[in-house]
Order: sequence, then structure tokens, then C-alpha cells
Amino acid sequence: MAGHLDVQKGRVEMAHGGGGRAMARLIDQMFRAAFANNWLAGNEDAARFEPPVGPLVMATDSHVVSPLFFPGGDIGSLAVHGTLNDVAMGGARPLYLSAGFVLEEGFPLAELERIVASMAAASREADVPVITGDTKVVEGGKGDGVYINTTGIGVTHPGVAVAPHRIQTGDRILVSGPIGDHGVAILSQREDLGFATELRSDTAALHDLVAAMVEAVPDLHCLRDPTRGGLAAVLNELGQASGNGMTLREQDLPVREEVKAACEILGLDPLNSANEGMLVAFCPPQAADDLLAAMREHPQGQEAADIGEVTADERRFVQMKTTFGGARMIDWLYGEQLPRIC
Amino acid sequence: MAGHLDVQKGRVEMAHGGGGRAMARLIDQMFRAAFANNWLAGNEDAARFEPPVGPLVMATDSHVVSPLFFPGGDIGSLAVHGTLNDVAMGGARPLYLSAGFVLEEGFPLAELERIVASMAAASREADVPVITGDTKVVEGGKGDGVYINTTGIGVTHPGVAVAPHRIQTGDRILVSGPIGDHGVAILSQREDLGFATELRSDTAALHDLVAAMVEAVPDLHCLRDPTRGGLAAVLNELGQASGNGMTLREQDLPVREEVKAACEILGLDPLNSANEGMLVAFCPPQAADDLLAAMREHPQGQEAADIGEVTADERRFVQMKTTFGGARMIDWLYGEQLPRIC
Repeated sequence: MAGHLDVQKGRVEMAHGGGGRAMARLIDQMFRAAFANNWLAGNEDAARFEPPVGPLVMATDSHVVSPLFFPGGDIGSLAVHGTLNDVAMGGARPLYLSAGFVLEEGFPLAELERIVASMAAASREADVPVITGDTKVVEGGKGDGVYINTTGIGVTHPGVAVAPHRIQTGDRILVSGPIGDHGVAILSQREDLGFATELRSDTAALHDLVAAMVEAVPDLHCLRDPTRGGLAAVLNELGQASGNGMTLREQDLPVREEVKAACEILGLDPLNSANEGMLVAFCPPQAADDLLAAMREHPQGQEAADIGEVTADERRFVQMKTTFGGARMIDWLYGEQLPRIC
Repeated sequence: MAGHLDVQKGRVEMAHGGGGRAMARLIDQMFRAAFANNWLAGNEDAARFEPPVGPLVMATDSHVVSPLFFPGGDIGSLAVHGTLNDVAMGGARPLYLSAGFVLEEGFPLAELERIVASMAAASREADVPVITGDTKVVEGGKGDGVYINTTGIGVTHPGVAVAPHRIQTGDRILVSGPIGDHGVAILSQREDLGFATELRSDTAALHDLVAAMVEAVPDLHCLRDPTRGGLAAVLNELGQASGNGMTLREQDLPVREEVKAACEILGLDPLNSANEGMLVAFCPPQAADDLLAAMREHPQGQEAADIGEVTADERRFVQMKTTFGGARMIDWLYGEQLPRIC
């Protein structure tokens, strides 16, 4: 491709989405260079791969997080982690990713390069290549820098069949780590709070943790990552889907001190705040100790906790036994405490 | 899901992307209702399917077309066709689609419903279900109504191996129909030209035509749908990728009279104008007659034509023999005649 992309001073132009030389240059010198692999080298609109053995899982996620860069990550790493986690929560090992960019005219190419580099690093770290992509450009004022869709394909772990309808009364509810980190980190960054540096997003790929969990307890009933809406939304949604209630124990709920403090200042509840590197798991009660042990042995589950259980409740209420002996309803909000969290 | 979505008067709210009740309601009453299938009924963040036999193909496409509705289609049908066609151009039969929506706050739900209905109809007509999805909402002024990413998975037709590097000197170049229809239809709509009604986008799913083509000529060398940048961009790109030149015959190039007329008024060249329901195929010369016959027998290839051949040319030039006996270079533009074409 003749002509060099001026990454340092250049900006996204409408021509970068036009299907001509400018787009070919951007794709070649930025995307293909960063994600370097044989699939992209083929210069095709689609990528080919051999099907693995076992049922496949497909998940898609568009990312519109604001700001694009935040403590602990950026839209690039988040776009990789978010979709890998959705595939992993389907009880599968992620294999391949696609990436679709919607770029806003005028966005600095240097920032785009940072995002793409972060995405490529997350993809390499997870050992899941980006094998096909697409680039569109919209006029200034019709986007917000960069939106990224990623779609993932994975293969189900043998013998594993996680699904909301498998959740049963008596199941134990485990989380892999502290709740609310991502949402609070984003809001602190947005509001420019002084303690922003202490609050980092937990954005991370969880498929390796899931592999360890299903090896220890293949009969896992359900997995979910509590992103938008936080743990409260996920538990209410899964209660609705499975026809059960849930009871949490506040004293066992892991929340970082700095997240608690930020939530008090901001008027938030950690239960409604998003995570991007934490999962909730449902398992038969007799398997809970083994599962918890397997989670704690893994680097990403060191702070795992058994936080409650699934109850028989026609009303499908999610409740929490408070530290002081009372009980409160964990409601499912109409919207989100914070928009554009992921 | 308690509460009813007011499709007639309602508008997209930030809460519809928030992970709470409002989002669940939108997904349930609009998306899950329209795409009605067992995968979406499962209420999971990922969908499971049995792997087919044969190498798989994955393609992704984000759609930002403006206007959202145009003669012959809308962003919903286009989003289905665009990705099905990318999978088909990989020599594969499309099997499954994902859909990722980026909605702008304030967008009328009634228009969203029209788009989703059109998408669902295109998906059903193609017999390729949308098995998983994602919904994000951005503030007014940070989007343009609706952007849609679709990602597709397909299985390669047995014995078929289309790729740019398989294009050889002497290969014949065939198109499945008239060139430039989509781009001219969009621009006419945008400019509110009087003859807009005569110009319709050719948006269509081409995988059935491809199936007929590879059955007739399994040794097809390459397939591509000339979308952004039109036929000129695709031929230049494939010439670059395969290390060949190409020569077209102007007299054999199918262009509708109304497209010619519109191009003259608008100062466009049909060769640079996008199609969304037309493909270009490269095949060995001895197979060209069989391929052309198979294409013309198919409803979507009735106007198929043999338009030229691949030449030995180190400079990788694309040239056209004009009707008057001359020759002109078919250049590859820097950008696009028209932004936001797909």
C-alpha cells in the first residue's frame, strides 16, 4: 500500500471509511499491523477456520464506554474482555473474535492507535485472535470518537451446560471477586474525583478462571458476568428466568473499601455498579466448597466468596440479609446509575 | 416482563441501554419478539449451536448508512444482507447472525420497530437466524439514530476455496448484474432528486446465487461483492492482492439506463458506486461459459455478464477498453464518492 499513515498528527477522515486507498491504508498500517495474524493477512472480507469439536457459542457486544480511557483499561481492552467473558459465561472456551469499528471523523489517529494496541495486547494475552474486521467512519457529531463491536466464537467445555433455567432452589451463589469496581472507576474518572487513582476498573478476561471452575465442578448450573446494572440486575434477571428467589448475605459480599467510600460520596450502591472482570456462579450446594476452593486457587478468583443461595419464592424476589440482622430488597433499577459504562 | 413498551409514541431513552428493567423490556418486546427463535428465548448473553461439518467462515460489518430508509431497503435489511454476502463471498453458506445495536437517545421506537421488522424479515427470507444480540444507547448527538453491527458464521461449500491469491492471469471476470445501483439510489434519496423513485438499491442476500455458482463451477477462484468504492475499488484491491492487472470491456459492462442518467447529473461514475446485491467472480477461462449460464439461470443473476479478464501486468493496473476503441485507467479513489453508503 503506497503512502504512509500519519499516526502522530493525523485524524480520522471520512475517506478512511470510503472503501478506497485511504481505508486500505488505515486497515493495513493500523489494524492489520496491530492484530498481525494470517487470517487478516489474507485481505478478505471474511475469515476461515476449522471448526472445533463440540457445540459452539457465539456472543456479540458493542462498546460505547465514555471516557475511552480510564484507570485500569480503555475501550480497546474492554471490547476484547467484554465479549470473551460473554462467550466464557456460555460455558465455552473463546476461540476467535471479530472487530467492527465506527470511527468519528476528526478523531486523532494517535489515540486510535493506542486503543488498537491495547485491543491487540488483550487479544494476545487471552490467546484469542481478531480474525476479521470492519471499519466505518461517521461525520463529526454523529459518533463519540470510537465505538467498537466485537463478536466472539467459542467451543463449549465438554460436559458443561450452563444456562439460567438450570438454576435451582438451594443452589449456592458465588462471586469471583469484589463488586462494583468498574462502574465506580468510570464514574470517578468522569466526575474527576480526587481519589480516581485508587479506583481501577477490574476489566479482565475470565475464560481461564472459567476453565478452572468447570474442571473442578463440571455440573455448574449457571455463569454470568454482572456488567451493566451490576450484581442486582443480574440476580433479578436470573431469578425471573429461572423462577426463583435469591437471598444474599451482606457480611459475605466482597466490596473494596475505596469502592464503598466512593459509593457513599457519589450516592451509588455497589450492588448496582458494573464489573467487567468478575463473575457470579450458581452451583449445587454440595459442590460449593470445591468450587470456591478452585476459584480461590486461580489468580482471578483469590477474593472469591460464597454470598448466598437460591430460594423458593414465587415472587422471585432478590433479598439481602444485612449485617445488622435485617433484610432488604435488592431492586432491579429501571435504567442504569451511569450511562455508557461499557 | 412487567410494563409495556410504547412503540407508537415512545423514544429511545438512555435507560434502554442501562442493563435494567427498561433494557430488558426493549429487548423482550422489540428484538426478541421480532427475531423470535429458541436461541434468543434462552435469555443468555451468548447463543449455542452445533458446529457444522467443514471449515467455518466469520465476517463482520457495521452499518451506518444515511438515510436509514431508502428506496429498495433500509439499514435493517442492509445489515442482514451485507454480512450474509461477506460470508457468501468467503465461499460459504451462512448459518447464524449476531446483531449489535448502537441507538441514539430520542430515536422514535416506531422507526426502530420498522428497522427491526425489516431485519427480521430479511433474516427469515435468507433462513439465517439472528441468535444473539446486544443493545447500547448513546446520548443525543453522539450517534445518528441507529448503527447496526452484524456478524455472521457460515460453513464453506465442500471443495470450494475462493481467495484473492487464487486469481490468475487469464481468469475471466463476471458480474452478476448491473453496477452502481445502491450508491446512486442512496445519493438520489439524499439529494432528493426527482427521479429517486426509479432508482432502487439492489440490496439482497446473494448466498443462494453463490450456492448455484459453486455447484456449477467448484473451481471458482474468487468472489467479492463490490460495496464501498464500487467495482473499481474491488478490482484494484484484488489486482494488488493477486499481483495481476485487469482489463474490462466497457460495452459488456451492465449499467441501468437510469443509473447512467443519474450518474451524469450527479457527476458520478457507476464504476465507483456501491452495490449491495451484486457480486464479481473470477474463474478459469474454460469454466466461464458454464458459470455465466448458471448465474443467468438464477433469479439474482439474470443480467450476469462476462466483463473482462485478468492480465499479466506488474503494475497491477485496472484498465477498460472503451466502446469507442480507446482504453482508460480505472483508478482507485482515495476515499469514496459518497460517505455513509452502508
